[in-house]
Amino acid sequence: MGEYLHDHPVTPRTDAEKQSVVNRLKRIEGQVRGIQKMVEDDRYCVDILVQISAINAALKKVGFSVAERHTKHCVSDAVKSGEGNEAIEELMEVMKQFSK
Amino acid sequence: MGEYLHDHPVTPRTDAEKQSVVNRLKRIEGQVRGIQKMVEDDRYCVDILVQISAINAALKKVGFSVAERHTKHCVSDAVKSGEGNEAIEELMEVMKQFSK
Amino acid sequence: MGEYLHDHPVTPRTDAEKQSVVNRLKRIEGQVRGIQKMVEDDRYCVDILVQISAINAALKKVGFSVAERHTKHCVSDAVKSGEGNEAIEELMEVMKQFSK
Amino acid sequence: MGEYLHDHPVTPRTDAEKQSVVNRLKRIEGQVRGIQKMVEDDRYCVDILVQISAINAALKKVGFSVAERHTKHCVSDAVKSGEGNEAIEELMEVMKQFSK
Repeated sequence: MGEYLHDHPVTPRTDAEKQSVVNRLKRIEGQVRGIQKMVEDDRYCVDILVQISAINAALKKVGFSVAERHTKHCVSDAVKSGEGNEAIEELMEVMKQFSK
Repeated sequence: MGEYLHDHPVTPRTDAEKQSVVNRLKRIEGQVRGIQKMVEDDRYCVDILVQISAINAALKKVGFSVAERHTKHCVSDAVKSGEGNEAIEELMEVMKQFSK
Repeated sequence: MGEYLHDHPVTPRTDAEKQSVVNRLKRIEGQVRGIQKMVEDDRYCVDILVQISAINAALKKVGFSVAERHTKHCVSDAVKSGEGNEAIEELMEVMKQFSK
Repeated sequence: MGEYLHDHPVTPRTDAEKQSVVNRLKRIEGQVRGIQKMVEDDRYCVDILVQISAINAALKKVGFSVAERHTKHCVSDAVKSGEGNEAIEELMEVMKQFSK
């Protein structure tokens, strides 16, 4: 991970925070498996595309909640200790990739 | 499915076609599980966001290959039988959702 | 243009079609000028970002209407004359860029 | 503007900052006019879509630079005065729209 500022969040995630993100990812995992079944059942392409769009939207939602948590903790801590710019540039860089 | 033009593709997917899409989706499923582990291990938020972006990109790639296959078969068949417009409008509608 | 299949659409745009697209682009041009003024007036960054998002959405809408017209005419003609695959691959390639 | 936290950035943009953003927007305005001409000249749809994608990419770039400046100034100031959460939520909300 050497290329990023940290290996872990500055404020560790609570168990409840972890559980909430993991639950959303488990639902997404189930949706991906659902599409595999749709392909195996030779379901209509447009139905499959609608499902893929739904997963993308769900993943973006998880991503934004991770980014918000990151900004409220890691980036804010960096700002308070006078080292905000590097953290903000890192955040913007990853948001650019994410918004593609 | 009543809202779409078909329940199945006009030309059924071959076993090789199904296998190729399913394999890509299995890799994506594995990546989603990988992020769950990253969250449980309390890994750095930016690393997690980079992984989510990678999954989104992989899903879009699968989606475009499904859309291309759909256009080459279902939409093209509709065009040849003089009923292209409805199929093309359906395609554009789903591409709009997909490109969000 | 050598890299694309054509220099012009197979079925020329009617004057009404041209006018409709040009009018939408003129509105977008006005919106872009509006943002310049917001920047000069030192308006709040979030207001500016909201306006940029609105222009992006308007441009995507124009793009999808161009893509739909293209598929109904150029791609459909190619399909009917047995040369659909090349036109469809070109369409998908540009939709990939467009959906970034 | 009542719906946002501010009417103006907390730290006013310098003339050089304004000029840099305005110049980029002027180029984008020129690109939008260029597409109008392409439509009037009945140019190939795919060429037009490529140009629209280029403008979208240029607009996103401007948007990210505005967002970065906003985070380094307005959001950081809010964080330092203990009112970061509201500013961060506002930022994330606009980034969500922006990444569509």
